[in-house]
Amino acid sequence: MKNHRIAQVAIIGASEADEATLKIAEQAGRVIAGLGAALVTGGRGGVMAAASKGCAEAGGTVIAVTPHTQMDEVNDHAHYHIPTGMGWVRNAITGIAGDVVLVVGGAAGTLSEIAYAWMHDRPIIAMSCCEGWSQRIAGQKIDHRREDVVIDCPSVAELEGVLKALLAERRGA
Amino acid sequence: MKNHRIAQVAIIGASEADEATLKIAEQAGRVIAGLGAALVTGGRGGVMAAASKGCAEAGGTVIAVTPHTQMDEVNDHAHYHIPTGMGWVRNAITGIAGDVVLVVGGAAGTLSEIAYAWMHDRPIIAMSCCEGWSQRIAGQKIDHRREDVVIDCPSVAELEGVLKALLAERRGA
Amino acid sequence: MKNHRIAQVAIIGASEADEATLKIAEQAGRVIAGLGAALVTGGRGGVMAAASKGCAEAGGTVIAVTPHTQMDEVNDHAHYHIPTGMGWVRNAITGIAGDVVLVVGGAAGTLSEIAYAWMHDRPIIAMSCCEGWSQRIAGQKIDHRREDVVIDCPSVAELEGVLKALLAERRGA
Amino acid sequence: MKNHRIAQVAIIGASEADEATLKIAEQAGRVIAGLGAALVTGGRGGVMAAASKGCAEAGGTVIAVTPHTQMDEVNDHAHYHIPTGMGWVRNAITGIAGDVVLVVGGAAGTLSEIAYAWMHDRPIIAMSCCEGWSQRIAGQKIDHRREDVVIDCPSVAELEGVLKALLAERRGA
Repeated sequence: MKNHRIAQVAIIGASEADEATLKIAEQAGRVIAGLGAALVTGGRGGVMAAASKGCAEAGGTVIAVTPHTQMDEVNDHAHYHIPTGMGWVRNAITGIAGDVVLVVGGAAGTLSEIAYAWMHDRPIIAMSCCEGWSQRIAGQKIDHRREDVVIDCPSVAELEGVLKALLAERRGA
Repeated sequence: MKNHRIAQVAIIGASEADEATLKIAEQAGRVIAGLGAALVTGGRGGVMAAASKGCAEAGGTVIAVTPHTQMDEVNDHAHYHIPTGMGWVRNAITGIAGDVVLVVGGAAGTLSEIAYAWMHDRPIIAMSCCEGWSQRIAGQKIDHRREDVVIDCPSVAELEGVLKALLAERRGA
Repeated sequence: MKNHRIAQVAIIGASEADEATLKIAEQAGRVIAGLGAALVTGGRGGVMAAASKGCAEAGGTVIAVTPHTQMDEVNDHAHYHIPTGMGWVRNAITGIAGDVVLVVGGAAGTLSEIAYAWMHDRPIIAMSCCEGWSQRIAGQKIDHRREDVVIDCPSVAELEGVLKALLAERRGA
Repeated sequence: MKNHRIAQVAIIGASEADEATLKIAEQAGRVIAGLGAALVTGGRGGVMAAASKGCAEAGGTVIAVTPHTQMDEVNDHAHYHIPTGMGWVRNAITGIAGDVVLVVGGAAGTLSEIAYAWMHDRPIIAMSCCEGWSQRIAGQKIDHRREDVVIDCPSVAELEGVLKALLAERRGA
């Protein structure tokens, strides 16, 4: 990893989600902070806000990459904000905005992000305990260009270990 | 459909594909020309080139929306070219560039286009006879925001009817 | 120019403009149709609508590349519509969507398009009879990467000749 | 300014520049760090690298928003990296990635960023001591939608005061 770069984990998921999924997102945010990585999200509500809250409260750094144009059009938990002004097209960016990409639930928008993460060779972890695309895609290949699969992570208890290993690998690169 | 607008069908699929898939793409291009609709593709090789060839040879109009920057960076079959200069991010555009979107095979890039087509409410037809995402997603919902599913079209023989009905509906709107 | 490609001229200008500018835009659209080229615009009102009307009424083909997401969110004069769903970021595309780019008036949005046209090496013609960026930038260099300047076209009477020469050059390439 | 948000200044300028301009960029980076704001740049060489170096060495935080796709495709001075994968289209983002936008020299790419900063209502400061668009546009209006002008800042000595006032205003908002 380059000089001063701080490891980044992108969390992708829907702007509306059930309580169980939001709780997982918040816990995942804490795990990321604990590992000394920064969190990048799409800066809106739901999974994005919950993960950001968890990370920020645990002392981590949160960057939001939103579809909006104004600096304050972002959720309450982001330290830095990159507005894109390009609507859902910004998913092509949030999907690749980390050294590792973590999927928590997710609808069609999340699916577009998963596709970009795969195309641009990011390791992808999917929380298979959360309904939505993280459950549907866990353990699968998106296509044949890569040897690996979307990593199936069944619970937050296992997330820290999986994430730690992937970040160590990246930091060593 | 607005005044002078000519109906458009977007075909999405991979830049490399097996012979059977390419043949389906070419036939689909002909069907579109026959229905008086214009074809929009991503303007590269594989499924995009085959569909464009089929459509152009049958007298149809072909528009290419490429990831490139220069006017001649496009396959040989396009009449009009919209270069985007934004790499694979252009999938967010090709995925919604038709009144109807037709999936022929497809890898991760195609999956991103399917996701955008769904988010922006385009009717989606998937050729389930072709390996890849058109087969994996046919007959399924991408998420719960829509009542419908990705339409499963098992063969080119059935495509004309399905497409004709959808275009008639859109033209009437 | 590639095989089947039809020459394209992109007209860029504001969505609101004074009568004199709109008249120039409409006449420019007619000139483009007369030269057998297709017109590409941003598909909204003002200069974009006037140019599209002129071109369509003279029998030309009009393609709109809009910031919107839905197929019918486009002015009344376009034959084909490429919605981008990316707001003003679509200016990076409209600015390069022709073999030649023609500036008619223009505010900040048009300036962004001029910058992209220059970066990607499109010949640029500016109607210096129209207030706005076409007047401010006519005859100037944007930067030192190119040998040429933004071509100063003082009236519609001269446009046909200038455009014809540039298109002939491109078609010969 | 929202809750946890840290003020951001975007510096825009060319990837190649003369020594005098690079020195101004580096000093501007230091000023930004001194004011407790984060710096956002396009993450490439020239003005972007010099400003980032200045800011990072003075203890500030640097975010890069690049045209690239891979996490390590970024200059040596960025702490956080948002790759966009969209080539020069990313200028639409870098141009609005701060509470204030500072122009240091600049060619056509910078001009596109200035246009976006203006459209989306960012205060713009132009270092008129640097050749290029910061000199050409200082003290001018881009168009009539705004009451203000691009602020003419003739030297780094005056930059701190100008920037401090603008950031205080934004933080108060």
